[in-house]
Amino acid sequence: MKLVSFTVGEKESFGALVDETVYDLSQASGSSTLAEFIGSDGFKNREELVQRAEHYPASEVEFLAPIPKPEKIVCSVRNYMDHHNEAIAAGLQRELSEFPPIFLRTWRSQVAHDKPIIRPRASETLDWEGELAVIIGEGGRDIPVDSAMNHVAGYSCYNDASIREFQFHAKQIAAGKNFESTGGFGPWMITNEELDLTQPIRVETRLNGEVVQTGDTSQMIFSVPELINYASTIFELVPGDVIITGTPAGVGFSRKPPRYMKAGDIVEVEIEGVGTLRNPVEDQK
Amino acid sequence: MKLVSFTVGEKESFGALVDETVYDLSQASGSSTLAEFIGSDGFKNREELVQRAEHYPASEVEFLAPIPKPEKIVCSVRNYMDHHNEAIAAGLQRELSEFPPIFLRTWRSQVAHDKPIIRPRASETLDWEGELAVIIGEGGRDIPVDSAMNHVAGYSCYNDASIREFQFHAKQIAAGKNFESTGGFGPWMITNEELDLTQPIRVETRLNGEVVQTGDTSQMIFSVPELINYASTIFELVPGDVIITGTPAGVGFSRKPPRYMKAGDIVEVEIEGVGTLRNPVEDQK
Repeated sequence: MKLVSFTVGEKESFGALVDETVYDLSQASGSSTLAEFIGSDGFKNREELVQRAEHYPASEVEFLAPIPKPEKIVCSVRNYMDHHNEAIAAGLQRELSEFPPIFLRTWRSQVAHDKPIIRPRASETLDWEGELAVIIGEGGRDIPVDSAMNHVAGYSCYNDASIREFQFHAKQIAAGKNFESTGGFGPWMITNEELDLTQPIRVETRLNGEVVQTGDTSQMIFSVPELINYASTIFELVPGDVIITGTPAGVGFSRKPPRYMKAGDIVEVEIEGVGTLRNPVEDQK
Repeated sequence: MKLVSFTVGEKESFGALVDETVYDLSQASGSSTLAEFIGSDGFKNREELVQRAEHYPASEVEFLAPIPKPEKIVCSVRNYMDHHNEAIAAGLQRELSEFPPIFLRTWRSQVAHDKPIIRPRASETLDWEGELAVIIGEGGRDIPVDSAMNHVAGYSCYNDASIREFQFHAKQIAAGKNFESTGGFGPWMITNEELDLTQPIRVETRLNGEVVQTGDTSQMIFSVPELINYASTIFELVPGDVIITGTPAGVGFSRKPPRYMKAGDIVEVEIEGVGTLRNPVEDQK
């Protein structure tokens, strides 16, 4: 099932997208947000709730990021071996870590499908990073690797777009990873039963139709269960938390010469079995 | 004026603390949180609002962190020259950056005055970092250095307590800086007119009464206006955002042998003209 967050008129809601129809699940479920819903018993009864939900043509709603305001967005660093290697080839001194390197994004850096990724006035070094996003359903602390997948509500596409100049201002990369309206997220969340992560899942990024990144999840250094285990050692994971799982080789800064995004570009992140996230690029006004 | 967030009975509210009396400003101002209040016109009329506010004895309320759920907690890295130097002396390879190194904490890592800082099961390396916290009132993007202080609503004490083992798992230190209930914050926010940052402000951390860190804000590498300018280049600052401004020398991990906090300890962060934040230490249950 495809789950979406959206506004219809003045109201913010969430629901299921089936073909070109949106089924509004907020009234049917009693939850007010998708994050709340996927952490509730209603999530298990989603097929039944859809049957009795109010519905609208998809053209009448405005889609938001699947989780517009995650409490936490936990981001993996160099979690695909080929991207790790291209970073070293580009001159960065980086070592493989025994533990998953992570940083945090704020929800304010997110942007919905079809909405513009904003290149800031401060720098022209806006780069793409297509990633599989994992969305937490049932929360928890100190979640064992073996049962971690039970905490996954679903998946989406993420563009961990980065302002490389700011990312490399210091060892801490959060500055370059948190610019307003850079993190494309969507178009929807597919529910957990629709993706088998034990098989390699293809991740592809396209800039103006040209494939710039391609890889698959078998290249991950730390697996999704390992990332969940590590994050939950630090803090309680809660419904709607997002873990983005790293990007394959092919980013712009490692190219010679480096290549960045500019106003008028269209960037797409396609993940096999999940969907295609598309964002135009605009300059900060 | 000292502003506080608190619960009284089942209700979460905020207000002013005058001697041993709490003046509840939520009803008087129409704002529902302190973050909302300090971004509103009501903040300018706070003296008048206190005159007509409902009030209770302080003993009847339970204090929360001044801003219990900041949208963003922007944290400075090695922003006191003597702490930068002790980190190098302890064997870290670190360089001064041309721009402020920052990372993010989540609100979930915060803990109120008098509430326990939690040493996790995962590691014994719980270290202290006393810091001046700056709380944003009027929000904004691309805020110039010259007018940055106009965006400060007030100040508080922060203990950027860190799990050093996790902090050093990788170059990104966010893992060690986000453990649940480690970031002491309080006891209150003092409003901007009460602190003159053009003068050196003493910052002192005590462990079981023993002074372990002492310094003053003249040692800051990047000033408060510079930190606000940099952060607001990345994202819109909003009322209630917190910027923690770095810690002086004297942390536990740079000692030989290293020294960490354990259950039963009492850690205090005293900032001249602001107050004293005190937290007992307990083990994760």
